Amino acid sequence: MVTMKDVAQRAGVSIATVSFLLNDTKPVTAATRARIEQAMLDLGYRRNMVARALASRRTHIIAMAYPALEHRFGMSTSEFFTSAAEAARKEDYHLVLWPVGNDGVELRELLGQGLVDGVVLMEVQLVDPRVDVLRQSGTPFALIGRTTDLDGLSHVDIDFDATVEDAVRHLREHGHHELVLISGDLDDPRFHDYGPWVRTEEAYRRVVASYDLPIRIIPCSDTTQAGKAAAARVLTEYPETTAILVLNEYAALGVVAGLKHTGHDIPGDISVLSLLTVPETAAMADPELTMMRTPGPELGQLGTQALLRQLEGDDPLPPQLVPAKLHPGATVAGPRAPRSKAGAGRRGARKARS
Amino acid sequence: MVTMKDVAQRAGVSIATVSFLLNDTKPVTAATRARIEQAMLDLGYRRNMVARALASRRTHIIAMAYPALEHRFGMSTSEFFTSAAEAARKEDYHLVLWPVGNDGVELRELLGQGLVDGVVLMEVQLVDPRVDVLRQSGTPFALIGRTTDLDGLSHVDIDFDATVEDAVRHLREHGHHELVLISGDLDDPRFHDYGPWVRTEEAYRRVVASYDLPIRIIPCSDTTQAGKAAAARVLTEYPETTAILVLNEYAALGVVAGLKHTGHDIPGDISVLSLLTVPETAAMADPELTMMRTPGPELGQLGTQALLRQLEGDDPLPPQLVPAKLHPGATVAGPRAPRSKAGAGRRGARKARS
Repeated sequence: MVTMKDVAQRAGVSIATVSFLLNDTKPVTAATRARIEQAMLDLGYRRNMVARALASRRTHIIAMAYPALEHRFGMSTSEFFTSAAEAARKEDYHLVLWPVGNDGVELRELLGQGLVDGVVLMEVQLVDPRVDVLRQSGTPFALIGRTTDLDGLSHVDIDFDATVEDAVRHLREHGHHELVLISGDLDDPRFHDYGPWVRTEEAYRRVVASYDLPIRIIPCSDTTQAGKAAAARVLTEYPETTAILVLNEYAALGVVAGLKHTGHDIPGDISVLSLLTVPETAAMADPELTMMRTPGPELGQLGTQALLRQLEGDDPLPPQLVPAKLHPGATVAGPRAPRSKAGAGRRGARKARS
Repeated sequence: MVTMKDVAQRAGVSIATVSFLLNDTKPVTAATRARIEQAMLDLGYRRNMVARALASRRTHIIAMAYPALEHRFGMSTSEFFTSAAEAARKEDYHLVLWPVGNDGVELRELLGQGLVDGVVLMEVQLVDPRVDVLRQSGTPFALIGRTTDLDGLSHVDIDFDATVEDAVRHLREHGHHELVLISGDLDDPRFHDYGPWVRTEEAYRRVVASYDLPIRIIPCSDTTQAGKAAAARVLTEYPETTAILVLNEYAALGVVAGLKHTGHDIPGDISVLSLLTVPETAAMADPELTMMRTPGPELGQLGTQALLRQLEGDDPLPPQLVPAKLHPGATVAGPRAPRSKAGAGRRGARKARS
């Protein structure tokens, strides 16, 4: 291991002089600089960003903190990450992914090393220990997501209210009024406080109440298997259902598979609308899912911008909420026959069809 | 921005003394140390890993270099990454993900900053510019994958030969001899040299030749849409096919969907075997895919171990090839009727069944 002392000895200067040069704290003559640089080269001592970072406190590296062990890194996440990385690259920053847990412990350790200029936080919880860790460390950061108490935090997020409103309106316009939401599983301790699930469910309750429709919600984790089970529950508990909204993307694939397995035609017998997903996942379902498209590319870019503006001392990016937009697919149509809340169940309608 | 000079002024010592303390290059008295540390605290100057790294050249951070813009970060990748992160954590290292391109340009920039102790390389190409970049930088590294010229490189990889042998044998044991491989698309410039695709195709050519079967390969990129198109090509070009092997996991979902769309029963009319995937993706198909399970958890861990042994000066990890193992599903069965290469096509058999 080559130290500054070794460099100083080889260059025939004092350690302080090497330090002055590396940290740019005091001018050194061109001749001395050349001697020190030659010594560093000879000894394989890289005069690198570590040294410069020590002086400037800037590495031009930013991290996206993503709790990869708690949250599946799926197609949608990938869009947030790659768009954030591209946005960083355009501004001459490097974005790296930190797979740190939700509790903030590993985040604190990494921040303590001072190697990044700032952090973009993903998969934000309503009360998020990572926000406190970031504040205490003095590290600039931006949220893709929202805590309950935002208190001036720089953030961008999905507009869950507008997304759910548009989704329910779309189904209403097709004539559906027997709806079920297959939501997230808020009983899962990893997700009980997970913003997107809590906010979507709240929005759904509000929106269907405004239409004077019953609130029917079935919890479901984000796997295909869980989606199949949830579809079965819908058929048993709410047989009158003509349209299902599914919050999670892999669950949505399971809902379609499960309904088809039990002999239901989609959308002939029952419509399915995926609330947050991306075209590539939607294409995995057969028929292809009608969906509200997750604005991952927009939010990855905006979240990075929100952070970089802080780092560059520019005007702060105002908080932005971006709705998921309706994206055509083949799983939504009108209900097969007119029905009322108290009227004929869809089971009868399906029999009449087959 | 607080500099060493500010700290020195506030502590009433020379910059050199601050440097001696931070870089551990010369002893300072306890009283001086206390004064400097108090000054750093007062000024918010973190005596952090940047300083220590400058002295010790060690950060205990390792990076997984993953070309996220070229390669989809899917379910399988996620397994490699999280198992690698867990393996690192157990040894008190942090693993971060670097979404650097295949050409090595951004990798070189990041390495030049000297912030990581080593690199695990993912999605390795047969001739991989990133290997040269890593060698030139003097950074320890290990490959999850293999270049053609390994030349003592520390590496672990999928055993593609054993995987393809087992897969073809499984289909042969079910009585199939009209096989097609839906492979990767080696004409795509991003993938022309991509190890897993080249090696799988080579292995397939060798294995089916050893069974004296015709070599039938259809190129296909890794998307559901491409898989649907490839399934249609199989039906047109090789209507006698009774079993399809699919290299890529999202393509495999498309193959199943495409075959079903054209009225084929799986596995009644045609069997599908996914060559490299994980249970969660397999569950998205209906019926659930029979597969060779990608050994992501094993390889993520082994790749990290291979690197950490270098960093810790332990005995090198011997190169290891891990086969994907057969994992039961519901897309493989015997062909519907006995047939010979020149015999009745499967179209007739399917008609007889429906």
